[in-house]
Amino acid sequence: MPPSPTALGTLTGTVLLGSDIPAAYRADRSGYLPSGAPEVLVLAADVDDVRRAVTFAANAGLSVVVRGAGSGLAGGAAAGAGSLVLDVSGLNRILEIAPADELAVVEAGVSAAALDTAAHRHGLRYAPDPASTALSTIGGNIATNAGGLRCVKYGVTGDATLGLDIVLADGTLLHTGRRTAKGVAGLDLTSLFTGSEGTLGVIVAATVRLQPVPVDTVTVAAYFDDIDQAAAATAATLAARVRPAMLELMDESSLREAQDLLGLRAHAAGAFVVAQTDGFGARAEAEVVAEVFRDHTTRVRVSDDPETANELLAVRRAALPALERHGRVLIEDIAVPRSRIAAAVHRITEIAARHDSRIYTFGHAGDGNLHPIIVVPADDPGAAARAAAAADEIFATALELGGTITGEHGIGVLKRHWLERELPSEALATQRAIRRALDPDGLFNPGKAV
Amino acid sequence: MPPSPTALGTLTGTVLLGSDIPAAYRADRSGYLPSGAPEVLVLAADVDDVRRAVTFAANAGLSVVVRGAGSGLAGGAAAGAGSLVLDVSGLNRILEIAPADELAVVEAGVSAAALDTAAHRHGLRYAPDPASTALSTIGGNIATNAGGLRCVKYGVTGDATLGLDIVLADGTLLHTGRRTAKGVAGLDLTSLFTGSEGTLGVIVAATVRLQPVPVDTVTVAAYFDDIDQAAAATAATLAARVRPAMLELMDESSLREAQDLLGLRAHAAGAFVVAQTDGFGARAEAEVVAEVFRDHTTRVRVSDDPETANELLAVRRAALPALERHGRVLIEDIAVPRSRIAAAVHRITEIAARHDSRIYTFGHAGDGNLHPIIVVPADDPGAAARAAAAADEIFATALELGGTITGEHGIGVLKRHWLERELPSEALATQRAIRRALDPDGLFNPGKAV
Repeated sequence: MPPSPTALGTLTGTVLLGSDIPAAYRADRSGYLPSGAPEVLVLAADVDDVRRAVTFAANAGLSVVVRGAGSGLAGGAAAGAGSLVLDVSGLNRILEIAPADELAVVEAGVSAAALDTAAHRHGLRYAPDPASTALSTIGGNIATNAGGLRCVKYGVTGDATLGLDIVLADGTLLHTGRRTAKGVAGLDLTSLFTGSEGTLGVIVAATVRLQPVPVDTVTVAAYFDDIDQAAAATAATLAARVRPAMLELMDESSLREAQDLLGLRAHAAGAFVVAQTDGFGARAEAEVVAEVFRDHTTRVRVSDDPETANELLAVRRAALPALERHGRVLIEDIAVPRSRIAAAVHRITEIAARHDSRIYTFGHAGDGNLHPIIVVPADDPGAAARAAAAADEIFATALELGGTITGEHGIGVLKRHWLERELPSEALATQRAIRRALDPDGLFNPGKAV
Repeated sequence: MPPSPTALGTLTGTVLLGSDIPAAYRADRSGYLPSGAPEVLVLAADVDDVRRAVTFAANAGLSVVVRGAGSGLAGGAAAGAGSLVLDVSGLNRILEIAPADELAVVEAGVSAAALDTAAHRHGLRYAPDPASTALSTIGGNIATNAGGLRCVKYGVTGDATLGLDIVLADGTLLHTGRRTAKGVAGLDLTSLFTGSEGTLGVIVAATVRLQPVPVDTVTVAAYFDDIDQAAAATAATLAARVRPAMLELMDESSLREAQDLLGLRAHAAGAFVVAQTDGFGARAEAEVVAEVFRDHTTRVRVSDDPETANELLAVRRAALPALERHGRVLIEDIAVPRSRIAAAVHRITEIAARHDSRIYTFGHAGDGNLHPIIVVPADDPGAAARAAAAADEIFATALELGGTITGEHGIGVLKRHWLERELPSEALATQRAIRRALDPDGLFNPGKAV
């Protein structure tokens, strides 16, 4: 039994206990369900609420599970028995936009899309664009160091994060980072907390970089006979000194499903690639991309019309929803050195056949970050076990090819035992030492990530 | 008395003791001299040497001062009584260049210039370009998270660092990071060690990003009547959605000195700005830069001829050597939000007058990173004290303007007490907790940085 909520003091936000807590607070979008349910839910309205909730949890012997939009894909926000869920999505004010300094200060619950919209009023944008951008919070994006489609040119969430406000295990409010483009005063705490998946403290606000909206954007799309041609074309694109802002790949089966969902005429193809170039050199770069693509296929389309661009990108964006029609999906997230993309896709196809699983692969070819999606049909009782075995082999493949088990989604609960296969024991020991130093009693997200 | 060097075992490299150690090993390029001299110098030839030296020092009660080229500007490599200097400049092999994956694996002692030359053979380059690039080592660049001229577009050293090999205080070899463009498996140890100034471990190797050599480079230079016009022009350049690869500013006095050193006809001007654009949009971007500059001055020059570009850049590069003719120089390194550049330069001018000091300011306008250089003439006995007071006020100005006391050189010894004015006490406590967790006995660079 947790202590009475009166020990929390007077909060601006809301507190719910036990069975009053909606079931959705146990899980994120990974599908993982922990055993038991959280004891306390704090819907924080301000930083003081967060500090009180953390101190209360520490005194009550509850763990703290921080939650933004609950859109994580690795179980990082899953909350079971003995936990206090600290929902910071109510901290959703854009505190400042400083156009001349190209930065914004936002509370953790602001969505990337909302910030991006606000920045556009100044001719600026927030470059990181995880697929969940309309839904997920910047706090969650930072906690997982989220990627997205534009990373190949603009970097990941961490590359846009200049500073953080964090509530530590003892309730202290820590400010890290700076408002300047450069700065090397002290250890880089901002990067340490970025991607720490709620294990070191509660991110309550962030100072983030903004960028000018590019003057031009051009889209190049191509259908290839097979994945090898597509992979060769993307590699040749990057070798041609081009820096596309986006370079996305879909395999045959995910292309078919996406076209079907959108009701588009099927372009039968072994693989689909959509690239975008932007900035002052967008047209010249797009010409180079198209020329390189034409060395590998005749079916290339170039467009600087935003509507056509949206149509071409819609196919890529439809891939996941299209697959979700067929059952539960396991969304994997490996990254390999870019030269190994074709090898990875081939291995995934073999794995699918061997485990009699339906695996669809698409992802960020420019980064070598692939999302093999394993569909588990509800009417196939053995599918879940076969999918788990296939996922296991996909992770092994990523590591064999010199890659990682997670390019942008994080470790959470689901990949925890795999982390020990990716990281050498010295790295795990060092990470745990840091975690102990900052959170000696294991208050934050115990049993997750490192 | 340190134990006999036999306790070190058989090293591939060289060991020197006490008075056999050249005096240069006490200092770096900051001018700071510690009290006493190092007891042991290990010129390491391989990673085993580094591990043995660290273990030996721990057992012998000596501190470990890691040293690359000794080109640091904050006293980070200064080594006094009770220390073992661990020179890793002998670990200077380029272990791998992987063109398709756009990365290189190098030992810590490789210079950025040497890597850049090797990368050019594959049409690639190493983007970070600290002014010391020909001299300093990549290990030292990473230890200070060094900046340079191209940061405004390509980021700092940390942005190019994918992974590290580090010898920890217990002699363990730790591998961090990855070979993939993206990856979020575990805490970001790579960023934590980047910029840690030799306080957490010994960087012995690094995996770094390479980038395609830009297809085009165009240089735009302009003389302005005063610093306000120059600052307005650089701000307007960035607001015009241009991303120059370089945007450098010199004040009136540093311009005069540089022209004098180079024997150039004096262009009397209140300020000088040199910009470079590169990539597929270089020409279009250069046109925009020139147009923006012309709103603030009539004296604008645009060139895509490499020789002319080198001449224009030579003026910027000559600034520091020109000043070193006049005495000892204190090289400061503040960064302010870009909108405060003109305010910072004005304040520095006032400070110089008030303290009867000669201060010359130039720097990276695109980043708001300014280098006020205080000249201390040898024939002026009171100049050093006045310079110190002026430096103190410059740091205070940087903080008042929302900036930092160090944009790219680090804290070292010289700025240590100022760090406590920049960082809140919670940040210092957190940094110290991390340092204790990784180096409980304070083996590495005690008394420096955090």
